[in-house]
Amino acid sequence: MNNAFTIEQTCPTTHARAGRLNTSHGLIATPAFMPVGSQGTVKSLTPEDLKNLSVKIVLCNTYHLYLRPGMEVIGKHGGLHRFMGWDGPIITDSGGYQVFSLSGLRKLTDEGIYFRSHIDGSEHFLSPKLAMEYQRKIGSDIVMMLDECPPHDAAHDVALAAMERTHRWAKVCLAWPLSREQMPFGIVQGGMNAGLRRESALFFSELEFAGFGIGGLSLGEPKEKTWEMTSVVAENLPAQKPRYLMGVGSPEDLVQAVSLGIDLFDSVLPTRVARNGALFTRQGRRNIRNSEYRIQEGPLDPSCRCYTCQRFSAAYLHHLFRCEELLAYRLATLHNLHFIISLMGEIREAILSGDFPGFKRQFLSVYKIADEGIRLEQKKKWLERSKMKNSRSKMRFSTPDS
Amino acid sequence: MNNAFTIEQTCPTTHARAGRLNTSHGLIATPAFMPVGSQGTVKSLTPEDLKNLSVKIVLCNTYHLYLRPGMEVIGKHGGLHRFMGWDGPIITDSGGYQVFSLSGLRKLTDEGIYFRSHIDGSEHFLSPKLAMEYQRKIGSDIVMMLDECPPHDAAHDVALAAMERTHRWAKVCLAWPLSREQMPFGIVQGGMNAGLRRESALFFSELEFAGFGIGGLSLGEPKEKTWEMTSVVAENLPAQKPRYLMGVGSPEDLVQAVSLGIDLFDSVLPTRVARNGALFTRQGRRNIRNSEYRIQEGPLDPSCRCYTCQRFSAAYLHHLFRCEELLAYRLATLHNLHFIISLMGEIREAILSGDFPGFKRQFLSVYKIADEGIRLEQKKKWLERSKMKNSRSKMRFSTPDS
Repeated sequence: MNNAFTIEQTCPTTHARAGRLNTSHGLIATPAFMPVGSQGTVKSLTPEDLKNLSVKIVLCNTYHLYLRPGMEVIGKHGGLHRFMGWDGPIITDSGGYQVFSLSGLRKLTDEGIYFRSHIDGSEHFLSPKLAMEYQRKIGSDIVMMLDECPPHDAAHDVALAAMERTHRWAKVCLAWPLSREQMPFGIVQGGMNAGLRRESALFFSELEFAGFGIGGLSLGEPKEKTWEMTSVVAENLPAQKPRYLMGVGSPEDLVQAVSLGIDLFDSVLPTRVARNGALFTRQGRRNIRNSEYRIQEGPLDPSCRCYTCQRFSAAYLHHLFRCEELLAYRLATLHNLHFIISLMGEIREAILSGDFPGFKRQFLSVYKIADEGIRLEQKKKWLERSKMKNSRSKMRFSTPDS
Repeated sequence: MNNAFTIEQTCPTTHARAGRLNTSHGLIATPAFMPVGSQGTVKSLTPEDLKNLSVKIVLCNTYHLYLRPGMEVIGKHGGLHRFMGWDGPIITDSGGYQVFSLSGLRKLTDEGIYFRSHIDGSEHFLSPKLAMEYQRKIGSDIVMMLDECPPHDAAHDVALAAMERTHRWAKVCLAWPLSREQMPFGIVQGGMNAGLRRESALFFSELEFAGFGIGGLSLGEPKEKTWEMTSVVAENLPAQKPRYLMGVGSPEDLVQAVSLGIDLFDSVLPTRVARNGALFTRQGRRNIRNSEYRIQEGPLDPSCRCYTCQRFSAAYLHHLFRCEELLAYRLATLHNLHFIISLMGEIREAILSGDFPGFKRQFLSVYKIADEGIRLEQKKKWLERSKMKNSRSKMRFSTPDS
């Protein structure tokens, strides 16, 4: 599958590019956003909802699927596509991020990782080979290697060691026999150090992966760092292969990252904040819970063509959120995914027509970005909550041996 | 709207009848089940989902809508149909049941009811006239009068007084000027006393309501009592007007009540138990959370034509419930409503074709009913939970004056 990715147009000013990624379950026009359905479901949506949103590929998670429903159940269904009723492309993360960032990590060697389940505290083992084998069984179209993902504030030697282990694991993962239709992606690491990032990108350039993830970013570091690292990596990866910035993101970050030469994105942000009542508009995020929407007869965003804005008033959506009605989460998710998918389509059109810089300038001049201080605060809280959740479930069980 | 209801066929053996109820938002073939969307949304479903399920009418609740979003918001939208995006018929309960059965009741006179909101403990007043006026603003196709609903174990004098007050209120409600297209329904009371029930039915027979609810049943009394009261009332109501057994119910109860001459039903049961993982099959309820479904590749019910069973395995649904994924509640709700709507369709066909008794015998011989003891226990628990919820919110506020 070496010729799976073709670049159709490159921006003459920025590093943005428009391309097509061919998978055995369908074509993905890039730049593309991949909604997250960690447990085999994009929260609150059916596969038909995703099709109606023009979603082309969803991201699922090996760690989550390994724990529940387990590989036996997915195997019995002949893979994840049939299990979740989605016949479009699927990308799976290896589970490395979850195992490293949550507090389940117990012991780490080159062989693999001993960790505890965030659900019931049971002990498990994940290795580069197992991560690939699970994803082979899952039948993902794009398979992410197992990487070691250090915290954003890791010391230089920690980031270096994580990068080196990731490089050793890359060779193991690449050697693992996947199905012919599956595409393995490497993951560039290197912490917040431009030198390490360049080294890692050059290392991966030599390997026969079908594409490359950029890991370890958007984890709480300042935005300038994110873009500095992204730039160094993108510049040092082979031009003809797809680049995937893992865990990004917000509308403004998508626009920015595309201009640095990124093709693929995933993030829980649009769907997670939707369930919290935060809805995207071209002017910035709006919180539908705010009392200003209590009586608004028109839709949240009159210019929006999504199902929610076409069918319901802002007041109705506000009412559903106030009442904690299940429909609220679905309608808000539909809106935010429509916003992001449309945005990616417009970005792509702008690249193809040769005016991406104009589009970027226009978009960023109108879109009001959440204050950077508030953003980092929120991110920190969210990451801590994830950890606490993990610790709580662990505490219900006996203390681990190691 | 006196000729809104026409009877097409009457069962020669039982009291079952098939008819048509004409509303300004569409025709309802009876017997019919009306899904509950108390707060202006059938939990987890869009109006399109309801259309796809062939739902013809939904039941909303004046008490809930009065508290949230409030009459001002609904008025601004020109009524509930537009607010909730549903252009089919709507029936609204007056809110009497909620105010009497939950613990918000503060003071009751012939003028009306002082009660506290279950949400914030704030004090409100509801009267027969206000209940009608709110429903006029809501724009419901079928408007239920305000009744006094005593507990199922009320003493004779309590049931008598509630019935007499209900009768006084009936005249007030009937005199209230609704829109021409709206149909007011009376509500028969009388507790568990056949004499009172007959008296109430005969009282209402004389009044120009477009139809009649039977209230105060299915509240925890034994099933024989439910059917004894239902029979007495149905026998003493005018044959040419629709009869609505409020709060019923389960598949077996629907079949039974139709045979006693009931035309309309509502109940939260199918949707509530769905969100709990209890799914209807022709053989009885199944709990999708049970481990027997963990790996089942086929659908929960291979004979079922619902979206959920057509598209997903039992194992996938089991997985969604175990993971508490939002999609679980929607898929289960679709299944149970499909089951009930299909059942009502088959009941109707059986009446029209002249073999309802055969259908009833066949259905009840296969459908395994939940044990009566367990059923009453569950019902009691559920009613107590509703009360506790109500008390908790009340306790956050200062003690009322009266």
